[in-house]
Amino acid sequence: MNNTRVLVEGALHAWKTNVDRNSKFFLALSEDQLQEEIAPGRNRAVYLFGHHTAINDMLLPLLRVGPRLHPELDTMFVVNPDGAKPITVSTSELKLFWAEVNETLWREMNKLSPEEWLERHGSVSEEEFAREPYRNRHAVLLSRTSHLAYHFGQAILIRPR
Amino acid sequence: MNNTRVLVEGALHAWKTNVDRNSKFFLALSEDQLQEEIAPGRNRAVYLFGHHTAINDMLLPLLRVGPRLHPELDTMFVVNPDGAKPITVSTSELKLFWAEVNETLWREMNKLSPEEWLERHGSVSEEEFAREPYRNRHAVLLSRTSHLAYHFGQAILIRPR
Repeated sequence: MNNTRVLVEGALHAWKTNVDRNSKFFLALSEDQLQEEIAPGRNRAVYLFGHHTAINDMLLPLLRVGPRLHPELDTMFVVNPDGAKPITVSTSELKLFWAEVNETLWREMNKLSPEEWLERHGSVSEEEFAREPYRNRHAVLLSRTSHLAYHFGQAILIRPR
Repeated sequence: MNNTRVLVEGALHAWKTNVDRNSKFFLALSEDQLQEEIAPGRNRAVYLFGHHTAINDMLLPLLRVGPRLHPELDTMFVVNPDGAKPITVSTSELKLFWAEVNETLWREMNKLSPEEWLERHGSVSEEEFAREPYRNRHAVLLSRTSHLAYHFGQAILIRPR
């Protein structure tokens, strides 16, 4: 196995580990637990769950592997803070969306060759990328992995001590 | 620049981004803020700061780039939960240790060639590594980057809303 492949598979493994940790946690939460705040006056668990679902969904065009599946989540979970807009998706729908988004992403991610991970991501033009080759799909994957870990650290605070 | 180098530099950039974010946050905290709990009954900010310092210090031998600088932190910040042991290091010392550990790590990380990032990490034997080549320095770097993001997401909860 060549070096490029080993490194890309390492990054995919880190991504998958963080997705799986989030799945295990959020999919097991009850309706009541999803409505809990992670700390007094802070985001509810359901907000973080919807936020992760929407941000992962955005990866489909950002990695240039497909169109968004659920852009309707952005108003509720990305553009506005928790509580600003009513959440009009049920938690059972949200759990389905989470699974759908992550299965689609994982399938498409695994179709990319190691070399394709070094190609430009979807928010950079070919001209910009020629000057800034680090703005590639791989960089997006790493930053979104950190994003999943960051909010997961917050979400688990609803667990009883 | 070859593909292996681009990928390794991407992983180093993700690491550095997370270290810098933690530095900017923790080094600016007052003594009182460091004593605040991130949520009622949860870890204090100083515990998370010491925890990050100790875990990063452990990377020196784990990446096989040098000996520990501050193993004395483990009892206070890794082995035991917050509150179980008195914290016998002052916050000004801890801030110095954080800077020292991360500067040493960054200097040593940058001495490794892209190919050396694919060599075994310090907790795996040569025999195990021959069977499990994904247990390399690069994998450790990615998992510790997630670790920094995870607790950073918690620590920033002490910020006023």
